Amino acid sequence: MTDIHRVERAAERLKGHVRRTPLLNSPLLDRFARRRIFVKAECLQFTGSFKFRGAWAAISALPAPVRDRGVIAFSSGNHAQGVALAAARHGIPAVIVMPSDAPAVKIANTRAYGAEVILYDRETEDRDAIGEKLADERGLTLIKPFDNPEVIAGQGTAGIEIAEQAALLGIDMADVLVCCGGGGLTSGIALALERHAPGLRARPVEPEGFDDVARSLAAGAHRKNERLTGSICDAIITPTPGQLTFPIMKRLCGPGLTVSDDEALHAMALAFAHLRIVLEPGGAVALAAAIFRKPARPDEPVIAVASGGNVDPSVFIEALNRFGS
Amino acid sequence: MTDIHRVERAAERLKGHVRRTPLLNSPLLDRFARRRIFVKAECLQFTGSFKFRGAWAAISALPAPVRDRGVIAFSSGNHAQGVALAAARHGIPAVIVMPSDAPAVKIANTRAYGAEVILYDRETEDRDAIGEKLADERGLTLIKPFDNPEVIAGQGTAGIEIAEQAALLGIDMADVLVCCGGGGLTSGIALALERHAPGLRARPVEPEGFDDVARSLAAGAHRKNERLTGSICDAIITPTPGQLTFPIMKRLCGPGLTVSDDEALHAMALAFAHLRIVLEPGGAVALAAAIFRKPARPDEPVIAVASGGNVDPSVFIEALNRFGS
Repeated sequence: MTDIHRVERAAERLKGHVRRTPLLNSPLLDRFARRRIFVKAECLQFTGSFKFRGAWAAISALPAPVRDRGVIAFSSGNHAQGVALAAARHGIPAVIVMPSDAPAVKIANTRAYGAEVILYDRETEDRDAIGEKLADERGLTLIKPFDNPEVIAGQGTAGIEIAEQAALLGIDMADVLVCCGGGGLTSGIALALERHAPGLRARPVEPEGFDDVARSLAAGAHRKNERLTGSICDAIITPTPGQLTFPIMKRLCGPGLTVSDDEALHAMALAFAHLRIVLEPGGAVALAAAIFRKPARPDEPVIAVASGGNVDPSVFIEALNRFGS
Repeated sequence: MTDIHRVERAAERLKGHVRRTPLLNSPLLDRFARRRIFVKAECLQFTGSFKFRGAWAAISALPAPVRDRGVIAFSSGNHAQGVALAAARHGIPAVIVMPSDAPAVKIANTRAYGAEVILYDRETEDRDAIGEKLADERGLTLIKPFDNPEVIAGQGTAGIEIAEQAALLGIDMADVLVCCGGGGLTSGIALALERHAPGLRARPVEPEGFDDVARSLAAGAHRKNERLTGSICDAIITPTPGQLTFPIMKRLCGPGLTVSDDEALHAMALAFAHLRIVLEPGGAVALAAAIFRKPARPDEPVIAVASGGNVDPSVFIEALNRFGS
């Protein structure tokens, strides 16, 4: 189980290895949104997303003899890159199992971070079987993307930073909107805020039609998405909240929010113009909710976690072409 | 005259008002460039460029009765926005004199920061006469973009931060490449490094064909650019080094470097992909030099100041289309 003590121990291990990302704001963005918005720019984290925190926390928590044999992960996205770099910095092998139709640049980047990439055919091969065989043969430890207590703790270190940065700004009451897939980042931040900034409340933000977490929170029990494709926010599409993350979110989080793909693209263009940061669609949904959803308490500022910035140029160009003027 | 004491006094006045921008790096960028590169991300500064530092320093240094009457600046770019916001935050009027053919978004942004914008016709009207008349009538103080001792001191606060951030990373010998127009940022940083990081050496970077500072440094005396248009790096095109900035640069700076417009665009695309920051062409020339120019001492890391990120979407799209794959 992940509790605040685990988050704080992860923060100790991450110190000096993970970037303390800035909390950005812009008077022109506030003017556009008609509210005070602060953006936790995790797109500036190593490997371009918060995933590096969880990967570092999980790898650094392994007993040395286990860690030295190496780690394995299934991912074609931000988790792959986070695990690859965290493993390389620990000097241990990393195997990342990716679908052979993953974008070439993601495969190349994962390799460039030092990982061995094993490609499989989505249609004919069983990813889990490949992974299990490799893990058995080489003694690799599987690093799951969110349902791992140390991964949740690592993501929660972003919440400790938010609590400290908000205190410096005199913000003691605010919603903290978090881009949410399986809930690792949301639940970790919620734990950190409960202890370090009890007036700040984590709320998950998801793409419309893929709001399994929002519906699960409303129902008090796991709900599933009907489909897993069809949103531009691919980085945060998951079937259902995690087994470990959901109880934490249920206890601590406010109601979930959803935004459309167009709103995510629009938020990317506004972040480009006013904050000069690069966001991917799935990393922009929290900012989109901050901008386009009516605040529950209009006088309070809002904090949006910009969780990642690994975006194909073509998608970024679409955002600028449609919303960049 | 600007000396280190003036820079340090400016740093005191800026504390809590100006963003301490991060020093970013990326293993994949290093791999591409075959050297260790650190990027001082001044594009994340308020108003999207370092100009806010100098504006704040100059305005906060004015005696209160003078300051309260307001300030005036001539600029269609980053200096305009820096002065506008710094004045607004001081609660004083700001008048910005801009050409009527300036991009609509820049005029709108300057107004949105709270300034009064006076438009003039480049062909038929005399900018300086308009400015002098306004300044006389209203008792406004002119804030020059670089040839002002307090502006230089304000820009130099970025150099104090670089010295501190480099020390934390164990970097004690490195070139610090600075995007250079009139030399306010370059000379201010050079003063800060002389005192706080004597192993770090500031070097100006300019667009090819507009290398007045590099040629002036080589000649030991002021040289002029033959033309003032024709580069995409409009933010840093100036006729000749400043009267106040050049003596400082001559005493402290290493040789100047130049890059092509295409190299600046390529650096923008690499900053997008690997650092997830938005740079304008003039704000990317130092990074371009770090990437594309052979290092004098290959084993040393290099620090590049990314000075601004106010870029039209169309120019950014061009950078991604040509160099973003």
